[in-house]
Amino acid sequence: MNEVSLGVFGASGYVGMELTRLLARHPRARLAFVAGERWVGSSVRQVLGEEGPAGELLYTAPEAAVAEAGRCAVALLATPPEVSLALAPRLLERGCRVIDLSGAFRLSDGREFERYYHHPAPPPALLAQAVYGLPELNRAALAEARLVANPGCYPTAAILALGPLLREGFLETGSLIVDAASGVTGAGRRASEEYSFVELEGDFRTYKVLRHQHTPEISQLLGRFAGAPVELTFTAHLLPIRRGILATSYARLRRGATAAELTLALRAAYRDEPFVTVAPAPERVSLLRVVGTNHCLLGVACEPAAGGRVVLVSAIDNLLKGAAGQAVQNLNLMLGWEETSGLNSLRSFYP
Amino acid sequence: MNEVSLGVFGASGYVGMELTRLLARHPRARLAFVAGERWVGSSVRQVLGEEGPAGELLYTAPEAAVAEAGRCAVALLATPPEVSLALAPRLLERGCRVIDLSGAFRLSDGREFERYYHHPAPPPALLAQAVYGLPELNRAALAEARLVANPGCYPTAAILALGPLLREGFLETGSLIVDAASGVTGAGRRASEEYSFVELEGDFRTYKVLRHQHTPEISQLLGRFAGAPVELTFTAHLLPIRRGILATSYARLRRGATAAELTLALRAAYRDEPFVTVAPAPERVSLLRVVGTNHCLLGVACEPAAGGRVVLVSAIDNLLKGAAGQAVQNLNLMLGWEETSGLNSLRSFYP
Amino acid sequence: MNEVSLGVFGASGYVGMELTRLLARHPRARLAFVAGERWVGSSVRQVLGEEGPAGELLYTAPEAAVAEAGRCAVALLATPPEVSLALAPRLLERGCRVIDLSGAFRLSDGREFERYYHHPAPPPALLAQAVYGLPELNRAALAEARLVANPGCYPTAAILALGPLLREGFLETGSLIVDAASGVTGAGRRASEEYSFVELEGDFRTYKVLRHQHTPEISQLLGRFAGAPVELTFTAHLLPIRRGILATSYARLRRGATAAELTLALRAAYRDEPFVTVAPAPERVSLLRVVGTNHCLLGVACEPAAGGRVVLVSAIDNLLKGAAGQAVQNLNLMLGWEETSGLNSLRSFYP
Amino acid sequence: MNEVSLGVFGASGYVGMELTRLLARHPRARLAFVAGERWVGSSVRQVLGEEGPAGELLYTAPEAAVAEAGRCAVALLATPPEVSLALAPRLLERGCRVIDLSGAFRLSDGREFERYYHHPAPPPALLAQAVYGLPELNRAALAEARLVANPGCYPTAAILALGPLLREGFLETGSLIVDAASGVTGAGRRASEEYSFVELEGDFRTYKVLRHQHTPEISQLLGRFAGAPVELTFTAHLLPIRRGILATSYARLRRGATAAELTLALRAAYRDEPFVTVAPAPERVSLLRVVGTNHCLLGVACEPAAGGRVVLVSAIDNLLKGAAGQAVQNLNLMLGWEETSGLNSLRSFYP
Repeated sequence: MNEVSLGVFGASGYVGMELTRLLARHPRARLAFVAGERWVGSSVRQVLGEEGPAGELLYTAPEAAVAEAGRCAVALLATPPEVSLALAPRLLERGCRVIDLSGAFRLSDGREFERYYHHPAPPPALLAQAVYGLPELNRAALAEARLVANPGCYPTAAILALGPLLREGFLETGSLIVDAASGVTGAGRRASEEYSFVELEGDFRTYKVLRHQHTPEISQLLGRFAGAPVELTFTAHLLPIRRGILATSYARLRRGATAAELTLALRAAYRDEPFVTVAPAPERVSLLRVVGTNHCLLGVACEPAAGGRVVLVSAIDNLLKGAAGQAVQNLNLMLGWEETSGLNSLRSFYP
Repeated sequence: MNEVSLGVFGASGYVGMELTRLLARHPRARLAFVAGERWVGSSVRQVLGEEGPAGELLYTAPEAAVAEAGRCAVALLATPPEVSLALAPRLLERGCRVIDLSGAFRLSDGREFERYYHHPAPPPALLAQAVYGLPELNRAALAEARLVANPGCYPTAAILALGPLLREGFLETGSLIVDAASGVTGAGRRASEEYSFVELEGDFRTYKVLRHQHTPEISQLLGRFAGAPVELTFTAHLLPIRRGILATSYARLRRGATAAELTLALRAAYRDEPFVTVAPAPERVSLLRVVGTNHCLLGVACEPAAGGRVVLVSAIDNLLKGAAGQAVQNLNLMLGWEETSGLNSLRSFYP
Repeated sequence: MNEVSLGVFGASGYVGMELTRLLARHPRARLAFVAGERWVGSSVRQVLGEEGPAGELLYTAPEAAVAEAGRCAVALLATPPEVSLALAPRLLERGCRVIDLSGAFRLSDGREFERYYHHPAPPPALLAQAVYGLPELNRAALAEARLVANPGCYPTAAILALGPLLREGFLETGSLIVDAASGVTGAGRRASEEYSFVELEGDFRTYKVLRHQHTPEISQLLGRFAGAPVELTFTAHLLPIRRGILATSYARLRRGATAAELTLALRAAYRDEPFVTVAPAPERVSLLRVVGTNHCLLGVACEPAAGGRVVLVSAIDNLLKGAAGQAVQNLNLMLGWEETSGLNSLRSFYP
Repeated sequence: MNEVSLGVFGASGYVGMELTRLLARHPRARLAFVAGERWVGSSVRQVLGEEGPAGELLYTAPEAAVAEAGRCAVALLATPPEVSLALAPRLLERGCRVIDLSGAFRLSDGREFERYYHHPAPPPALLAQAVYGLPELNRAALAEARLVANPGCYPTAAILALGPLLREGFLETGSLIVDAASGVTGAGRRASEEYSFVELEGDFRTYKVLRHQHTPEISQLLGRFAGAPVELTFTAHLLPIRRGILATSYARLRRGATAAELTLALRAAYRDEPFVTVAPAPERVSLLRVVGTNHCLLGVACEPAAGGRVVLVSAIDNLLKGAAGQAVQNLNLMLGWEETSGLNSLRSFYP
């Protein structure tokens, strides 16, 4: 099988490191460059311990990599939104397809972007090209996509839980609540007192209450599933652990349904999905079952009368299904490869 | 000042240990017995390292302690509900006042108790005597109480957050959601694989979804604050840390109000409260600020229009304000002592 | 390539789970049975999420597996020593080669075994067959071995650090000290209060001081490297983390040598080893660099004069290079397969 | 009882925060100033939640505090060594006694200081005044001391373990090894990637191997106990926890002795010490038993023949007995107060 050349920008962040490792081991990918702010001149072997040809690759400065991107089929951007906004058009015009892991191209409404990201929105023509890279929703569109907006970590967990039940008409579209918690790698690599061990170990707290930038992303996508606008409240919490997102989502039943029926509906929705599993109960969904893998694990409970409360619990690894793993899944779909390629050797970190 | 004789049942659990230490150091309390399933014949000094007269006290079997309870002003029960149900009447008839830290006497509706605790409810006459031991709500009634139902840990965090805003008419009584997480000491001392280090470290998960026994307790109390029944969904999560409860509560504004107005209302409600502090924002509420103390820290954010979403975050130490510390606070009120007595030498575990 | 049939006993412990997953994904292995105390009748897919043919395999009771072992080339025993002692002869007489991960066959001196394991030693004829499964020492012997004693976790870390420098005559054989610490998975699956989250989180302590059963194992092997008996003190500590062993070993220089010379000597010793890496300094050796992989990372510092102190630091994942990973490495050597087969897709859990 | 005025420099570090809290609650101390790099103009109540008069005190800039120090009986310096070296003479000449918590005045040999601290040594006349503030060794000298060098955290743990057995002639003075591990607060407040949560959680590693500045401090003090120079190797490790130091020390018996005899000798040495406890075995020494308190817990095991190995395990809270708590203990002795004053309300953080 022919290999395809790919490059990574933002390779020295935690997501970029995961992406580099996944692509270094991908059976069909050939890493052509890994670009980042640090490690320039060091090899992937030295930094990440990767063996084989990808291990010999040296980290390069981003500008040098842009020049090389014209020879790549796809570039993956694990960069902040403002960097992605600048890079993506330059790469696209060189004929290189782009998977962007930042929030730069996820929001179709530019005003929402500017409100939550405090940065001018991407030009509408560019935004119009962007395909939201949630394979469980958009598999067909991904094959032809030139610009993929890889979903946020919280949105991935929330949408996979709520989306199918909204689409099937089980849930009211008002009063959705997503209460979620993430491990500290979700905040990226930090040299700050706030993210020091002593300030976080044993702690638990919220951040960006009622103003988290993933709120409009979740709303937008749930609206697509529901076929109507939804009303959403989202709260993010910081867990004193390395990896993992657990989202507890609340909605109301539009019509009477038992937990068993909702579980069946979810199982039907994900019957052919390689990376989504529906547990028999929400208590069976836990971070240790998914951390280290590209899987999402879901479970649901409800009060069965119409108007009754539905509680959905979903768990993912924020660096994998919530970022780098999903990006590789999208890459596979863009290039017509087996969807699980490069992802099926991942293993849970448990025990 | 004269000391008053007190006794502890269930002294060998985590809550019982906290209670024993607090009472051993209380300036007005004289520990007359500490009863429990283990350590019988060992001294409090040997087990807990306490100095002074309380250190010399030997742990006794519960039956021996019942006989002695007649000479005590108050007995504190850190026992399971079914044990408390059996003990409390025997102690009361010996003239000993009772603070029960289990859920045995918290629910005024016996059917609710039976539904959630899977055990016959206490006799109505006994239940009628029970005063719910949340000083911020019930201070006056506690002075004369003979049987105090010390609040649950999750209810303490949730009620202190939502109660005043319901009482002041800021919040709708429907659609309340309390999404909370507790450290592992909240589950008590366990010799099970499920609570082993390897099964919990790095994990995060829900438990007892839509069937947690603290749900009716929170509802009942919030109903008292609101002056009308409330509709509540409560979800408990298990945090991979030792201590602390953080509750994120969701409600809707009955009338327009800003976060600043809600903060002011909370500050007014707690102006004279020694153990409740209102933070300027929910993001400032975190476990590290309260663990080790009897304090509750609160913060609120909202969408200011009528019908807008309110998010309240509250944090306590589950073993202190959520159990043993609040029991001592109740004891102080029952005996007419300074409310902070025996609690003001506690310190945050941070750094 | 033809697959070879293999079986696992003790498949429901933490080591057995790792072993099952490694073999389920091994390109040349065909899992014929997984036997253990629990999960009998469940599939490997249900328990571990493994896809493919191995996922369809059902856990069986140990006795049923013994009958089947005659059709297997190798059985791997992740069982307690007393179980391994009973199982191994029965399997060997059925023509099945054995890799035992317990301490049953590691000590060549039966009296040492009885002293440290409090159990009658294996019969000398059986013991005489056992090959100590440290590939870096015994690669040649493993090809023909019928009974392999897979090394202990602490011994692996200690021997890989001290062995080559003893063999090369750099170190005195008296006064060796190994001070090591292990994550909690090293203690296996436990349903005891002692290993509960609350009793271990944030703690650090020693155990079995001057009486740990890995002491004679380390001594015996270091003696082989040194060509003379060694004198060793070993102390084990329990770290409040899931995985990883870090060993800090102390010795004295027999002749003057710099840290750079010792580092070179170690690098020469491990030049062709796929799973041992020598870091430029002991401070660069840390658990996060090895956990999740089959690698051992080593570093050395010293006071360069003759008689000067040498400090060696080595790190492994206790469940992989310290147990299941090394067992697969041994299996590969026994069957003439690529030594890294089934192990090179492992990845560090960092970040 | 008259209160005495005191001041703290370096009040915004982790040790300075502990010191401020201890002194704010000390029954005889009156905090006159708290000086530090941050929080200038904020009150101790705002920052630390302290009630009472000390809570009203505002943080000041260090220079303003120097002027005020002339009205204080004692200033406590929780500052880096180079700051302490500059501050101490200025305070002493104003008639203010000094307890310095840095390493500036601990080493009597200026060349050792310069070698390990990379900074010019204090003038000999100043150094000559400094009393090493280990009450268990130097209680008498502390009463008159004008300049107290508060011991390092690792030295406190190591010296309390090895000192008495060296003094009683049980141990050889050669070949001492101290292998110790500290929680992350021992590194102070850090805004660096190296000390971020993601880089430390789940990790364990050494640092400053064979070059840690506590090595000459431990040697110097053990030499005083032994009455002869000792030879010492010391290795520090970083534990992924907040607080606590556990030291495992290795020595050889000069004459035959059992563990019971060594335990008795240690108990005799510490019979009247309020803050040192000898456990019946080294395995009973653990961080959870001491963290939160000013106590040191010790235990010993040995091979009883002459020349046999002795293993001593000792545990302290690095911020309390290892820093701020011991400073208050020294303060009490300097001012003729009860030695446990301000320290006996501390409680273990367990459970």
